[in-house]
Amino acid sequence: MRRRVEEARVGRLATVTPDALPHVVPCCFVSSFDATGTVVYSAVDAKPKSSLALRRIDNLRANPAAALLVDHYADDWSTLWWVRVDGTARILESGTERDDALALLVDKYEQYRKEPPPGPVIALDVTAWRAWP
Amino acid sequence: MRRRVEEARVGRLATVTPDALPHVVPCCFVSSFDATGTVVYSAVDAKPKSSLALRRIDNLRANPAAALLVDHYADDWSTLWWVRVDGTARILESGTERDDALALLVDKYEQYRKEPPPGPVIALDVTAWRAWP
Repeated sequence: MRRRVEEARVGRLATVTPDALPHVVPCCFVSSFDATGTVVYSAVDAKPKSSLALRRIDNLRANPAAALLVDHYADDWSTLWWVRVDGTARILESGTERDDALALLVDKYEQYRKEPPPGPVIALDVTAWRAWP
Repeated sequence: MRRRVEEARVGRLATVTPDALPHVVPCCFVSSFDATGTVVYSAVDAKPKSSLALRRIDNLRANPAAALLVDHYADDWSTLWWVRVDGTARILESGTERDDALALLVDKYEQYRKEPPPGPVIALDVTAWRAWP
């Protein structure tokens, strides 16, 4: 599970709106593992966004529960798999943890080297892992 | 947007648990468009499932709000896109609409021909479309 999350280039981040509606967007992310647990970091990057695209941040400020799904699809269904991490998110506007997370993101995604993500970073403290099959 | 949803082989379905936690799983689906609107159908198929895998059905019985995300990822970020449909889900245990939905699913996915999905079908009545960029 851990390797699949580490190697994935894209995940889908699910949050809940204040009206109890589900919200889900694709996102780039990086995972950080240490003795105290797993944190997944995702930045709001410089790709052009509509005002709606920051919905995820608003949702997390109101309800910090989040789930990140990583999966593999192919028409050969014997190869399918998914891993989901559930947890609680913190919004990092500045500070050392945000700087360290951005460094990890830039290391994973060379696309960020030209233009580091200017916005807040989501830190998802993972509390549960689920996987299939 | 419509073509991208029609052609996608996999989507990610987000729901909300009774405890207001987000839930997200990959799923196969088929979209049906007519003058009255769009319905997205997804079956609980015969792929081996743990007991947790039916969480989506339990969630929708308690809170019918659902979102289905279809997206494209590539390391060339100029090609990224996503489409999300939000709506209200109904659980079809039997009946004509379920039969018709299964026929559409079997038509789209030859994998279902050998073993049609035995479980309930989720019918998502789409109330909003979102797309990026």
